[in-house]
Amino acid sequence: MKRTVFFVSDGTAITAETFGHSLLTQFGELEFRQIRLPFVDTPSKARDSLGLINQASQVSGEPSLVFTTTVDPDVTQIISDADAHVFNLFDHFIDRIEKAIGQKRKPSVGQAHGMGDRGVYEDRMEATNYALTHDDGISQKLDQAEVILVGVSRSGKTPTCLYMALHYGIKAANYPLTEEDLEQPRLPEFLRKHKHKLFGLTIEPHRLSKIRELRRPGSRYASIKQCRYEVEAAEAMLRAEGVPQLSSTGSSIEELASRILLSQGLQRAD
Amino acid sequence: MKRTVFFVSDGTAITAETFGHSLLTQFGELEFRQIRLPFVDTPSKARDSLGLINQASQVSGEPSLVFTTTVDPDVTQIISDADAHVFNLFDHFIDRIEKAIGQKRKPSVGQAHGMGDRGVYEDRMEATNYALTHDDGISQKLDQAEVILVGVSRSGKTPTCLYMALHYGIKAANYPLTEEDLEQPRLPEFLRKHKHKLFGLTIEPHRLSKIRELRRPGSRYASIKQCRYEVEAAEAMLRAEGVPQLSSTGSSIEELASRILLSQGLQRAD
Repeated sequence: MKRTVFFVSDGTAITAETFGHSLLTQFGELEFRQIRLPFVDTPSKARDSLGLINQASQVSGEPSLVFTTTVDPDVTQIISDADAHVFNLFDHFIDRIEKAIGQKRKPSVGQAHGMGDRGVYEDRMEATNYALTHDDGISQKLDQAEVILVGVSRSGKTPTCLYMALHYGIKAANYPLTEEDLEQPRLPEFLRKHKHKLFGLTIEPHRLSKIRELRRPGSRYASIKQCRYEVEAAEAMLRAEGVPQLSSTGSSIEELASRILLSQGLQRAD
Repeated sequence: MKRTVFFVSDGTAITAETFGHSLLTQFGELEFRQIRLPFVDTPSKARDSLGLINQASQVSGEPSLVFTTTVDPDVTQIISDADAHVFNLFDHFIDRIEKAIGQKRKPSVGQAHGMGDRGVYEDRMEATNYALTHDDGISQKLDQAEVILVGVSRSGKTPTCLYMALHYGIKAANYPLTEEDLEQPRLPEFLRKHKHKLFGLTIEPHRLSKIRELRRPGSRYASIKQCRYEVEAAEAMLRAEGVPQLSSTGSSIEELASRILLSQGLQRAD
């Protein structure tokens, strides 16, 4: 039985989970069973959580790890009594930040992944709709795009666009280079005029072939020969046009999104 | 000039940003200018970052705040010399976790938002494709869904499904209740047989009307009368069928996703 790690919060538990995950990657994250306990915002729910935590410690024979971001003092107290190693992620830093900025905290429960500033939230939703309606096709509204991903079909453009939109409110369009496009030495004209916003996604041909096989098994579209041809032609075209490129083969959408935003000077984090 | 907060990492900086954001919500996050500095993985890039940080401190007349998750000792040292309040988010916890689990860290740079376990990553991408192809329509493959969101058009189903898929690899389908559906007292038969997977999203009618106005200004579809009718009929139907419901009016997609996964017993965090 693996040791269990709990992410406990009075809100979504996303912060506790993200930070706890990160810490655990330093220890080989996969050795742990991981459980999220969100919305633990009353003493009664805290006691329920306590029960689950203690039970896991008992079953695995080793104290569980608990990463928590609870704010309410009663809830925090109950969780801290668990038969487990409890790490309150806020405790250590709040005091130091108070000193650094000369201002006391305004305790608020679970606001980190709430709506926060409604304007910012609505930008994210609008960007998500934009990404969905400017996915894989020629669009009339590329003027509005902050970045336009180009690459062959199934190179990872759509999930990367969605990630940038959902998280950062970035209006990201994408355009799949067709065979017809690739027969030309230059980018299609309607894209060239947005050249400063273009970013290329490429992919290793064998990987692409595997992904396409899932979609259309045995097709010419999925054949390694076709994939190799398209990838080479696309890379050459983007190189000739001076469009920056990244490969999605060994990078997650989080990494791709971060690198693209960095490259395009879209590093705002608010 | 607002005080500046930097999120610095040798990886995507997503952990530093998520955790830093959370800490700052305790102080009124919006009072800070926030800048993400990802992929600071060489001494030379660290010195560039140092320059930006020091410059910001000078311009605002107050030392900047820096949240960092760098692992490389040279990089970490350079950043820690900044004319700023530097919070290394890992420092404090790594020692304590080492003691708790009786095991030394295996320092690895920026793995938290990389691909990690490729199987887990591919599940996320597959779930994202699933959400995209099972969005707003009758699907043949609801058997595969782990959760199916139902609600009137524009109640927030799509972005919530995408969030669950991108982050948690949850296969989430959604079905918009049409006027025709709403004239019936019961759910359509093809949904009823998946009742245990259904979750309702509702929305305040005025808010819905505003959202629909953006899509089809002046339409019957967007009128408050129509919105009120649809919302009331949908809520009544879902109540009668015993399908749990949440309102998207005051909740972010992160909150909705967390509550839905909790309600459906999908709390795995690995």
